[in-house]
Amino acid sequence: MAFQTEKNLVPCLALKNVDALLRCPICFDFLNTSMMTKCSHNFCSLCIRKFFSYKLQCPVCNAQATEQDLQNNRLLDELVVNFQAARQQLSQTYFDSPPISPKN
Amino acid sequence: MAFQTEKNLVPCLALKNVDALLRCPICFDFLNTSMMTKCSHNFCSLCIRKFFSYKLQCPVCNAQATEQDLQNNRLLDELVVNFQAARQQLSQTYFDSPPISPKN
Ligand SMILES: [Zn+2]
Ligand SMILES: [Zn+2]
Ligand SMILES: [Zn+2]
Ligand SMILES: [Zn+2]
Repeated sequence: MAFQTEKNLVPCLALKNVDALLRCPICFDFLNTSMMTKCSHNFCSLCIRKFFSYKLQCPVCNAQATEQDLQNNRLLDELVVNFQAARQQLSQTYFDSPPISPKN
Repeated sequence: MAFQTEKNLVPCLALKNVDALLRCPICFDFLNTSMMTKCSHNFCSLCIRKFFSYKLQCPVCNAQATEQDLQNNRLLDELVVNFQAARQQLSQTYFDSPPISPKN
C-alpha cells in the first residue's frame, strides 16, 4: 500500500463506503444470504438466526424481531458477489504491479 | 473514452455489474427509495406504485404483488448514494485527465 501513488488508491477509497455497507453488522464479513428484519436491518442468515436464539430483537436498533419476519433480498446477495469480483479485479490491476523496492 | 488506456477503464468495467444491479427495472435509473416485493424484486417506490395502478403483479417475474407487501430496504438506498459518489469520484480521477488529442 505504502508504495502506491495517491491516484492508484482512489478506487479503494471511493468504494470504502460501499464495501462497509455490504458487510454484516454481526460478523463484519460480507453479507452471506442476507436477511432483512422488519426494522430494515440486514444480516447474514446464519448470524441473525444464531442471535435470535439468544435474544428476539434486532442487534442494530433493538427493535422486536422474529425469525418469521426475516426476508431475503436476493439483490443484496448479487451485489455482494459482484462487488467482491470488482474488488478483486481492481486490486489485481492496482496492487499487483511490482512495488518500487522489491521484497528481496 | 476512446483516448483512455485499458488500465484506466478497469474501474468502470469491474463495477458495471454493480451499477446495473442498483438500477430500477422499470425506469433504468438508480433505485430511488427502493421497494422490494414479496418475490424479492426491487423498484423505485414511485415506479412500482405507478405500475400497480395498472397491474397487481411484479413487472419482473409476474408474481402476484400488492402495495401493502412492499418493503423498503434502507441499505439499498444507502448503497445507491455511496455508489454514485464513488462513481463520480472515479470518473473525475480517470476521465478528467486531458485526452491525448485535444478537441479543438
Ligand atoms: Zn454475518
Ligand atoms: Zn433494526
Ligand atoms: Zn424506477
Ligand atoms: Zn418478482
